[in-house]
Amino acid sequence: MIESVNPARTIDELKQLRTLTGNERGAQRLAFTPVWQQARDFLKSRFDGMPVEIHNDAAGNFWATLPGESDRALLMGGHIDSVPDGGWLDGCLNTLAAVEVMRRIHAEHNGRPPVTVRVVDWADEEGARFGKSLFGSSACTGNLDMDEARGLADKDGIRLPDALRAIGIDFERVGESRAELRHAAAYLELHIEQGPVLLDLGLPLGAVLGTFGVERHVVHFHGQAAHSGSTPMNRRRDAFLAAARMAPEIHDIARRSGMGVCTIGSCTTHPGIVTSVVEDCRITLDQRHLDPAALARMLAEAQEASERFAAEAKCSVGWERIWHIPPAPFHPRLVDFCDEAIRETCGSSHRLPSGPLHDAAELSMAGIPTAMMFVQSLHGISHNRIEDTLEEHLAQSVTAFDRLAQKTMQWIVSGDR
Amino acid sequence: MIESVNPARTIDELKQLRTLTGNERGAQRLAFTPVWQQARDFLKSRFDGMPVEIHNDAAGNFWATLPGESDRALLMGGHIDSVPDGGWLDGCLNTLAAVEVMRRIHAEHNGRPPVTVRVVDWADEEGARFGKSLFGSSACTGNLDMDEARGLADKDGIRLPDALRAIGIDFERVGESRAELRHAAAYLELHIEQGPVLLDLGLPLGAVLGTFGVERHVVHFHGQAAHSGSTPMNRRRDAFLAAARMAPEIHDIARRSGMGVCTIGSCTTHPGIVTSVVEDCRITLDQRHLDPAALARMLAEAQEASERFAAEAKCSVGWERIWHIPPAPFHPRLVDFCDEAIRETCGSSHRLPSGPLHDAAELSMAGIPTAMMFVQSLHGISHNRIEDTLEEHLAQSVTAFDRLAQKTMQWIVSGDR
Repeated sequence: MIESVNPARTIDELKQLRTLTGNERGAQRLAFTPVWQQARDFLKSRFDGMPVEIHNDAAGNFWATLPGESDRALLMGGHIDSVPDGGWLDGCLNTLAAVEVMRRIHAEHNGRPPVTVRVVDWADEEGARFGKSLFGSSACTGNLDMDEARGLADKDGIRLPDALRAIGIDFERVGESRAELRHAAAYLELHIEQGPVLLDLGLPLGAVLGTFGVERHVVHFHGQAAHSGSTPMNRRRDAFLAAARMAPEIHDIARRSGMGVCTIGSCTTHPGIVTSVVEDCRITLDQRHLDPAALARMLAEAQEASERFAAEAKCSVGWERIWHIPPAPFHPRLVDFCDEAIRETCGSSHRLPSGPLHDAAELSMAGIPTAMMFVQSLHGISHNRIEDTLEEHLAQSVTAFDRLAQKTMQWIVSGDR
Repeated sequence: MIESVNPARTIDELKQLRTLTGNERGAQRLAFTPVWQQARDFLKSRFDGMPVEIHNDAAGNFWATLPGESDRALLMGGHIDSVPDGGWLDGCLNTLAAVEVMRRIHAEHNGRPPVTVRVVDWADEEGARFGKSLFGSSACTGNLDMDEARGLADKDGIRLPDALRAIGIDFERVGESRAELRHAAAYLELHIEQGPVLLDLGLPLGAVLGTFGVERHVVHFHGQAAHSGSTPMNRRRDAFLAAARMAPEIHDIARRSGMGVCTIGSCTTHPGIVTSVVEDCRITLDQRHLDPAALARMLAEAQEASERFAAEAKCSVGWERIWHIPPAPFHPRLVDFCDEAIRETCGSSHRLPSGPLHDAAELSMAGIPTAMMFVQSLHGISHNRIEDTLEEHLAQSVTAFDRLAQKTMQWIVSGDR
């Protein structure tokens, strides 16, 4: 008899977790809080009855290891933490589906699979308290900026190192968690899409190509304040006019780029009164693309346009980079496996980039072959209590994720890597 | 011998007033303050040696009357108050030039001109303290909204009626000042342009066609907040995109209107964060034109465009009127006189509308034949210590204003009115 996963059990466990760690405002599994610890205890109890070694690493990540014939390890992971008033699936779908897949592997191989299988629950993926997302996975891959993280404080002024010490983690030693990745052969993650692409296509599942690189800037236009009554139009140096012309332009730039996105998220005006032409206008620009060259082109096109609009409005313009991260494309072979697993499960698949960052991006950037699978989000929304996914799609996601794990394990065994 | 004005004396008096009532930050003649009272005392002393009756009316306006053969009165006015840190000419040029013209009339007619001649210094034209400009002239014409004015308070919470009582004015009786206008046959005002039109044309003086009507609105676009990474461009309902497209549009609308102006003075975005599409965007729109039909057309065109941009961005849009005032065109015959007086003085003239409001607008709207003359502003700027006008142009302005007074007086005498 061929063993198979039981997706209904995963859905049942997700509902149990929701009852245990949520309230009428949504999920409350904030990292490093007692509710988060409750969620982890629930996760830990899922491994009862399997010969699994369990520990937390130096960065607070939770590891459950089913040893195999080889030390080479298949990692499946997610994050059980949530934002405040979060959704019931964001993060924990990954970890509980991985538990179910490990159960299937355990049963199929009589407790001794050909490769080691590990479930990881990354600590503080959301960064809701300290404003730094991907804490556990970046510490583990060595990508965490220690100097920056050391200075982080929550809204009550409590510093990250002190908060970690209170739960038994020595901030200065979080880098020791890197040892966990010594035998990592592949990393797989299942996540809700958090966007509307699969919903619009009417597809349950998609294969993620990678996470977008991000260029984030403040663009500052400077003109001249002038009386709104006494200044003829041709004498104005209107900073708002120059900035405003960026809005349709970045939509065009994004569309020309194929799959990229560009967003002006805020606009401030000075003096900002009804009787004056705007002297200073600042906008924030967030640009994302999976292809580094396309991302660079989007940025260059926006910069060129800003200079043109500034000149036409007799203004000056300056750019200040707030943040950037390169694209993290996933492993082509694993993306193919993911696509195949989806087709075998529900007939058709779709390849799409991920706009939001995920722990998978850290693993991929650290050189570990990585793939992600997305399941459709209803409303195309997340980080909100109305976040939801059809149970039928959740069930398909567990089945397809298990097929992806099978294909990946065969690939590791075959030594194709 | 034909008597003539002595513009050098006016310039000298302007400089004396600057020394008396200004400091290194500019003019400090705020209405109802001791410095303003000093300025008025200086003005009052200018009439020494002429058989002039002087009093303040019920609204605090200062009147100096040279009785003539007829009760019918030529009024010449301005305002000696300034904004804080204001310019040395804004307002007081009018009153001191009017004094000089009265001196010429007095000398020419041996103290008994054919019509009564009156110099008026309006109280609190600027509205710097209570945010309500044209206080004295609107009280005098009956156009002051008493209920609104009664509730005004300065930044220290002192109410306008209490501030007026402190200087001996009974707020509830300011309307009694209307009696001053009983015999008014014409009103003339000389003012700095406060804009760049005459500067750009290289002309010292211009004849003002009237003051712009104003339509002032908040335009509110509503879309949908969405993650800047996970939301494809074609799925966005970007309120900033819709609002931003208004900026070039209102420039086009203003240009098509001929002499009108349109200004977006402020823009606010919500949630206003770098990682979200803008859900709510509010802009203020100020539109001005001398022609009521053109002003209405500019408003209609902006409203139509806002609905189009909102629909294209899958947003909604709402309009809220903040304020409006109809255009106040000046008297055609007096505008002709003004134009002629300018040509006779410096060769060429230009007719232009006034963007800012002036006391002359109140008089004109009250049905008194009115004209204004503008003199070039250097830098096209006012309400600032760098406000300035070439002395050569100031001198020409006094001469031309006197010619305008002569023509207007002849017109009153002739009974053409």
